[in-house]
Amino acid sequence: MRKRLIVLTVFLAVALSVFAQAMLAQTTGPGSHSEGSHPDIDAFNRSLEDATFRMDNAATVALWTEEGVSLLPSTKPIVGKAAIAAFLDRVTAQFPGARMEKFELKCFDIEVSGDLASEWCTEHQVVHMPDGKPPFDGRGRMLLVLRKSSEGRWRLEREMWIPAEAD
Amino acid sequence: MRKRLIVLTVFLAVALSVFAQAMLAQTTGPGSHSEGSHPDIDAFNRSLEDATFRMDNAATVALWTEEGVSLLPSTKPIVGKAAIAAFLDRVTAQFPGARMEKFELKCFDIEVSGDLASEWCTEHQVVHMPDGKPPFDGRGRMLLVLRKSSEGRWRLEREMWIPAEAD
Repeated sequence: MRKRLIVLTVFLAVALSVFAQAMLAQTTGPGSHSEGSHPDIDAFNRSLEDATFRMDNAATVALWTEEGVSLLPSTKPIVGKAAIAAFLDRVTAQFPGARMEKFELKCFDIEVSGDLASEWCTEHQVVHMPDGKPPFDGRGRMLLVLRKSSEGRWRLEREMWIPAEAD
Repeated sequence: MRKRLIVLTVFLAVALSVFAQAMLAQTTGPGSHSEGSHPDIDAFNRSLEDATFRMDNAATVALWTEEGVSLLPSTKPIVGKAAIAAFLDRVTAQFPGARMEKFELKCFDIEVSGDLASEWCTEHQVVHMPDGKPPFDGRGRMLLVLRKSSEGRWRLEREMWIPAEAD
């Protein structure tokens, strides 16, 4: 059970950043958001939060850069969009019927220099499990590095995820 | 014992990035190294590797930016140079007699845009423990974000650390 929870956590860590980016391409437009001093990255974050509910692997993968690297605990580095897609598909297959009931994402300290950006985020997730199993309630933090594409869209270049304590 | 090892791991994660930066200010000079396409960051990395042996908290802390954030598993974010210094001192006090016997650091995919940079690294550490205890042998990965100071020196702005599997 513990091992399965770890795998689920890894899955969610990836889902968090991967699925959610799917929303970015659809919702981000210049000047479409105004909160904070980096509205384009704020929009990325909201999209990340929204999309994590959806678990659409293909759409999510499309939002990574080709060179994207996902770094997860006790897992070999997942390097490149194709590897991230394959990893997501493998993990998704292990949890049929899992469905996110709640997902909260808060990001801090956005820094931008040219086409490179960084921020760190906290997340809290509650996942419905099938077959009457109790829901999974987990928290984590991420350090993200974003790169702006030639079309001016921020995409995920690197992520690392760690478990976090409850507030 | 498991809890102590986790604490030690957290300590080493911080030591890795914190202690080691102490060397940076002493060794990094423009044009003093030529390997790779980012010799200044290569030098930072070698200094990080060298200094991790030393465990000189004060010198290490001096190499963080004032706004530095260290993100470690199941630990609240450590925000700011003063907090990092206090954390290091607390952890060091828990392991009197610990001494690093081996430390290897390999970093990958340096990316620079203006005064912001990112890379990810793997580390392998063997730590001598006092009182006849067996040595601690651990591995981890880090995602680092560096910022160039007004004096042109790269300093650590953000780190996250995760345990890594053996090769």
